[in-house]
Amino acid sequence: MEPIRWDGNKLVLLDQRELPNKIRYVTCNNVDDVYNAIKKMIVRGAPAIGVVAAYGLVLAIKYYKKNKKDSELEYLKKAAKMLASSRPTAINLKWALSRMICIAENCASDNLLNLLATEAESVHSSDLEGNYKMGRIGAKLILPNSSIITHCNAGSLATSGYGTALGVVRKASQDGNIKKIYVTETRPWFQGSRLTASELLHDNLSVTIIVDSAAGYLMNSECINWVIVGADRVTLNGDVINKIGTYNLAILAKRHSAKFMVVAPTSTIDIATKSGFDVSIEHRDEKEIKYFYDQLIAPKNASVFNPVFDVTPNNLIDVLVTEKGAILEPNGQKIRHLMHGSNI
Amino acid sequence: MEPIRWDGNKLVLLDQRELPNKIRYVTCNNVDDVYNAIKKMIVRGAPAIGVVAAYGLVLAIKYYKKNKKDSELEYLKKAAKMLASSRPTAINLKWALSRMICIAENCASDNLLNLLATEAESVHSSDLEGNYKMGRIGAKLILPNSSIITHCNAGSLATSGYGTALGVVRKASQDGNIKKIYVTETRPWFQGSRLTASELLHDNLSVTIIVDSAAGYLMNSECINWVIVGADRVTLNGDVINKIGTYNLAILAKRHSAKFMVVAPTSTIDIATKSGFDVSIEHRDEKEIKYFYDQLIAPKNASVFNPVFDVTPNNLIDVLVTEKGAILEPNGQKIRHLMHGSNI
Repeated sequence: MEPIRWDGNKLVLLDQRELPNKIRYVTCNNVDDVYNAIKKMIVRGAPAIGVVAAYGLVLAIKYYKKNKKDSELEYLKKAAKMLASSRPTAINLKWALSRMICIAENCASDNLLNLLATEAESVHSSDLEGNYKMGRIGAKLILPNSSIITHCNAGSLATSGYGTALGVVRKASQDGNIKKIYVTETRPWFQGSRLTASELLHDNLSVTIIVDSAAGYLMNSECINWVIVGADRVTLNGDVINKIGTYNLAILAKRHSAKFMVVAPTSTIDIATKSGFDVSIEHRDEKEIKYFYDQLIAPKNASVFNPVFDVTPNNLIDVLVTEKGAILEPNGQKIRHLMHGSNI
Repeated sequence: MEPIRWDGNKLVLLDQRELPNKIRYVTCNNVDDVYNAIKKMIVRGAPAIGVVAAYGLVLAIKYYKKNKKDSELEYLKKAAKMLASSRPTAINLKWALSRMICIAENCASDNLLNLLATEAESVHSSDLEGNYKMGRIGAKLILPNSSIITHCNAGSLATSGYGTALGVVRKASQDGNIKKIYVTETRPWFQGSRLTASELLHDNLSVTIIVDSAAGYLMNSECINWVIVGADRVTLNGDVINKIGTYNLAILAKRHSAKFMVVAPTSTIDIATKSGFDVSIEHRDEKEIKYFYDQLIAPKNASVFNPVFDVTPNNLIDVLVTEKGAILEPNGQKIRHLMHGSNI
């Protein structure tokens, strides 16, 4: 299963809505296809949609036709704006688009298509490399015989491969330190039961699925050492925006003395935004909750409140793992130091 | 919609698994039908299954044939044991069966069928009466302009009518004190979205559905004054066993200064059991989580942890409302006083 495949001319995406029942691939031939693939959650996961958006701009420029209205750069900026609007919360999307626009702004236009393709491939491969690094850094913190809970899918399918949270789980498992892995099913999209459980079983790792609301009972019934999740955005102060339910898990972890680890590349860190409560949280269609595929599971005239992310404040986070290193009890000062001590 | 209908000869139950899509009734002609109806969750809700089990014993005795092996009483006790095993956690089931056996033990056997039928009807009607009382008692605690969250279904469908938690919500709404009602969808059976939302809309009360894991974000986003739930068992010390996810909500409520109300008749109070952690928690089939109707939503070989209740310790409960009165911050002493100060 290869979630993102670029062949130089088109982008082929694994349709994550149909897993694990159907393995279906969707081809994106142009930037509109890419916009729709992100919007409709054919591809999801903050790092993955960043990579896909970068390729989206390659496809945009590939079909650019010279005209008086828009220069190549102007056309590209419009395409980037459209792609950025597909999902408002995950910051990797905007980060990847900025990287691409920066290349376009600084390079000779006769090379633009090739340069953008190279840059998109670099976004893609450096994400994968970062995941392996985070896996090693995070796994060092996991003591032998640890039981963990993960939420949603922060694995291969959410990234360029290996995963953020699941990268740590994979490496810690390989090191022989994992006793038991639990995953919350993660309503309304079931990313936990559909995607994370599939990925782990694919790697011959045992996994036990729970409904989201069973996390408290589980933590009270047996020792859970870590809750390990990814992130869609980390703000300057270390607040974490991630899949709805992450905040619940962080509160439950604190009460039951489980440690809480967030694994996210520095491309997820939004130093321009002070706190999580300044971030616009995406709300999605009520159909996600009222229907299961085509089956109605609620009264038609009921209202729905469907935020797809929540904000976990920094004081509930024990460690933030990035490809540049881990930060214990993240805060603004530590995050600034991490980001400025880098060459990005 | 009448969830439990007894016509003197048979028991007709509304199939709660199919709501709100299909209104289908299931007829129970004998005690085995009643056992299966409870086991398969055609009927659910602690008070409702108590009522249904009482009628189950009426049907048992109706078809009793004199034999050397079992006297009427012995036969009845065996039937009660079977019915009690259908769902192990809710105590109302055992309470109703004990009431019926007590009648059988103390009465002349030539009247037994009629006496048992009268007792079952009394269990049925006194449950309804108790719900109205609890509605009035609980609603007095709800200040004007209150927003509430309820979990699962503790309404008409879970009882003889009106409901426990939903009885309070109905009365407080009628009093004009409810600003907004949220209900958690309540995985894996969706009792919140399928049943509670339907009931409230049927009464022309607005209701907003959230996924279970959105409760924390909701409480952080707007003022929630009360979380109001039913119970499947309350132990002597005031611990509450209720639908999986109740414990999560109680922890979240405490953190966000929402008050936590449990509404349950005294038939739910198990004074013989000291604390919630002494209660056997029912685990149900993994299919409830891995399948949605016939659709597989997880890898076939994944494991599942599917406890259907959890334990909320007394220190997270602000008020326990019974038909005999409300107890603030319930504990063993207060519960003993409530139970002994009664004529049951």
